[in-house]
Amino acid sequence: MQHAKPLPSLFAQRYHGWKATTHADNAAWYRRLANEGQRPKAMVIACCDSRVHVTSIFGADSGEFFIHRNIANLVPPYEPDGAQHGTSAAIEFAVTALKVPHLMIVGHSKCGGVQGCLDMCSGKAPALEETSSFVGRWMDLLRPGYERVKDTFPEDQQAPALEKEAVLVSLENLMTFPFVREAVEARTLSLHGLWTEIGEGDLEYYDSIERRFLPV
Amino acid sequence: MQHAKPLPSLFAQRYHGWKATTHADNAAWYRRLANEGQRPKAMVIACCDSRVHVTSIFGADSGEFFIHRNIANLVPPYEPDGAQHGTSAAIEFAVTALKVPHLMIVGHSKCGGVQGCLDMCSGKAPALEETSSFVGRWMDLLRPGYERVKDTFPEDQQAPALEKEAVLVSLENLMTFPFVREAVEARTLSLHGLWTEIGEGDLEYYDSIERRFLPV
Amino acid sequence: MQHAKPLPSLFAQRYHGWKATTHADNAAWYRRLANEGQRPKAMVIACCDSRVHVTSIFGADSGEFFIHRNIANLVPPYEPDGAQHGTSAAIEFAVTALKVPHLMIVGHSKCGGVQGCLDMCSGKAPALEETSSFVGRWMDLLRPGYERVKDTFPEDQQAPALEKEAVLVSLENLMTFPFVREAVEARTLSLHGLWTEIGEGDLEYYDSIERRFLPV
Amino acid sequence: MQHAKPLPSLFAQRYHGWKATTHADNAAWYRRLANEGQRPKAMVIACCDSRVHVTSIFGADSGEFFIHRNIANLVPPYEPDGAQHGTSAAIEFAVTALKVPHLMIVGHSKCGGVQGCLDMCSGKAPALEETSSFVGRWMDLLRPGYERVKDTFPEDQQAPALEKEAVLVSLENLMTFPFVREAVEARTLSLHGLWTEIGEGDLEYYDSIERRFLPV
Repeated sequence: MQHAKPLPSLFAQRYHGWKATTHADNAAWYRRLANEGQRPKAMVIACCDSRVHVTSIFGADSGEFFIHRNIANLVPPYEPDGAQHGTSAAIEFAVTALKVPHLMIVGHSKCGGVQGCLDMCSGKAPALEETSSFVGRWMDLLRPGYERVKDTFPEDQQAPALEKEAVLVSLENLMTFPFVREAVEARTLSLHGLWTEIGEGDLEYYDSIERRFLPV
Repeated sequence: MQHAKPLPSLFAQRYHGWKATTHADNAAWYRRLANEGQRPKAMVIACCDSRVHVTSIFGADSGEFFIHRNIANLVPPYEPDGAQHGTSAAIEFAVTALKVPHLMIVGHSKCGGVQGCLDMCSGKAPALEETSSFVGRWMDLLRPGYERVKDTFPEDQQAPALEKEAVLVSLENLMTFPFVREAVEARTLSLHGLWTEIGEGDLEYYDSIERRFLPV
Repeated sequence: MQHAKPLPSLFAQRYHGWKATTHADNAAWYRRLANEGQRPKAMVIACCDSRVHVTSIFGADSGEFFIHRNIANLVPPYEPDGAQHGTSAAIEFAVTALKVPHLMIVGHSKCGGVQGCLDMCSGKAPALEETSSFVGRWMDLLRPGYERVKDTFPEDQQAPALEKEAVLVSLENLMTFPFVREAVEARTLSLHGLWTEIGEGDLEYYDSIERRFLPV
Repeated sequence: MQHAKPLPSLFAQRYHGWKATTHADNAAWYRRLANEGQRPKAMVIACCDSRVHVTSIFGADSGEFFIHRNIANLVPPYEPDGAQHGTSAAIEFAVTALKVPHLMIVGHSKCGGVQGCLDMCSGKAPALEETSSFVGRWMDLLRPGYERVKDTFPEDQQAPALEKEAVLVSLENLMTFPFVREAVEARTLSLHGLWTEIGEGDLEYYDSIERRFLPV
């Protein structure tokens, strides 16, 4: 790989600072984690967005969260077709090998992926409709959510509504995975739907009795 | 979604602590990030492994890193076939919409996904060969790396060697994406290959002149 | 300007080294900062002293800190009299145009400006009392701090006490600027008082509940 | 000061990293600097702009540069009127007390202060003309530069031309200070005019023979 560049010095400096403080203070614990293997408390599926910082929000230490991050925190339906499904592989590993007790889907406000889906489905972003658009094809997963939102909310409320639908669609798709359904029914796994407002730092969870998101 | 449960109280408590401290101390900055949009310095592609904590290692604040995490930090080759490629969608968004100046692939020691690939390719894990195995099919991406490692390293050194190959395979595949290649050639994007030893907290980068990993 | 000389070769050499390494490694990011404008996380007001290196202490990258440095890190009171107030102009630009979320006053040990103020106010430096002394007139800003220190601390502790008073006087004067007060009250700006011991590298912050400086 | 807040945790973490690495590696030197006093190689007058990073550009260590930063790197003319001139105090301290051998004025591209001056002088920014505008009154210092630029350059080249005039006006005003003129004439102080293009990282110096800026 002739194109790889060294680490920029700013990141190198910060790394050395981390090594001399956080790592030095916790070296014994990190060595145990390395030697004995991870045993995370939860799998988290969150968006790639740089403003969503799940380890910070939940005060998670090294070893606590098995984290998959993709555009708009989406889970595709179960499709064992031999294709390369990165999200499904991560869920399979977390649930069948690591046997995580919790799986949290974390959506968020101002999500660029969800906005793209809204634009695409409402005809405002024809480029996203093209076969070659990876973002467009990925956001196809959220079309069922758009169908539920488009006639229910006025236009200016559709984005946050669709962000929450992204969490619900993912929770629904999770249950189509046999190993997820089995673990949920055996009560060895519980699922959680969350949405965070990134400016104010608010956090809501999906309440399956009230059938809506409520403040944590 | 009748299966979703409320947030476990441990996480809820930590969240309220974060809101009252870190968020309160930085509320004005978080609001600006929310209103004005993200402008991350780098995209990071790292493993889901709970012991890999890239924001901590690099002292990254909210808004600095656009992060995609999947099993074994892999990038598939460019395949604009209309299928749902989560990793490719994340890269496309980061490079074409956010125009990140740096893209770092971060591999790590004791990687369960890489170990699975090693077991599968050496005939020790037939279950991973099945069509229905999401982890197995995902790790197929690393088979070219296994071919380069199997006759070069003694068996007990193959796992770390393959972990580093996972970084190189991803860097190679990145360059098959036209928009990545263009940005690299226009010098608006630089690629970086990194590998961290999670017990000792060591960090190595791929040096493209020496053609091997060297300590940062 | 016939008196200007070329850059000394030592600095020219270092500059070329920086251009070939740090700039080359971050060129895409620097270009974006140039084209899209700065969005700093904080304004820092620090002393000109060569031993105070705030970007280093806080690991700040290009683009992160809007920095004003003057003798003894002082902020004058709000005086919209049409005179040329460099410090007030910098604060006005940072708060009203850049809308920085944090403003940090950073004092330090062994401050020559503060020592001059102490000498002047205790009658040991008559030259500083002269109208034509720019340093003396600038340090007049700290006379209210000297009044609080002179009878409270023994002579050998007055210098560090007055260095910390310089931070507090500046914080007080900041609040006399209407646009600072409004931003603080609207919670879009937070103020921080810091003092660093330059030999040991210790850092203290002013705790407004305990009403004294405490280690960070 | 009831309004002061603690240091945000991100900066506190980075500080602790710096203390454990950069400071620990140089503690003996920092202690000597603290005990024996600073002896800087140069005074630098640069802009507050977060994208101008003079210690980085010149590879300056702690103790090397006595730095004054204000909006648009301006030096007012000598006016010993008893008013509080922060810039003049910094120059007086550097030249008469520290006896720095070099004094560098560092201008830069995309300067918001210079752009404000251009807008104000060409009638596009009436708010900056008000008595109460600290930025406007500060930028009055650059009006002589505008007079030289306005009829000489087409409109789209006036901003960089005025940025360079800001360096020249400052060099001219420096020579109105008796202690600066004496030191220059005694050859114990040399003055340097520099301008950096912040995107490309280019650096130019004012050549007093060719009477224009040339690449370093």
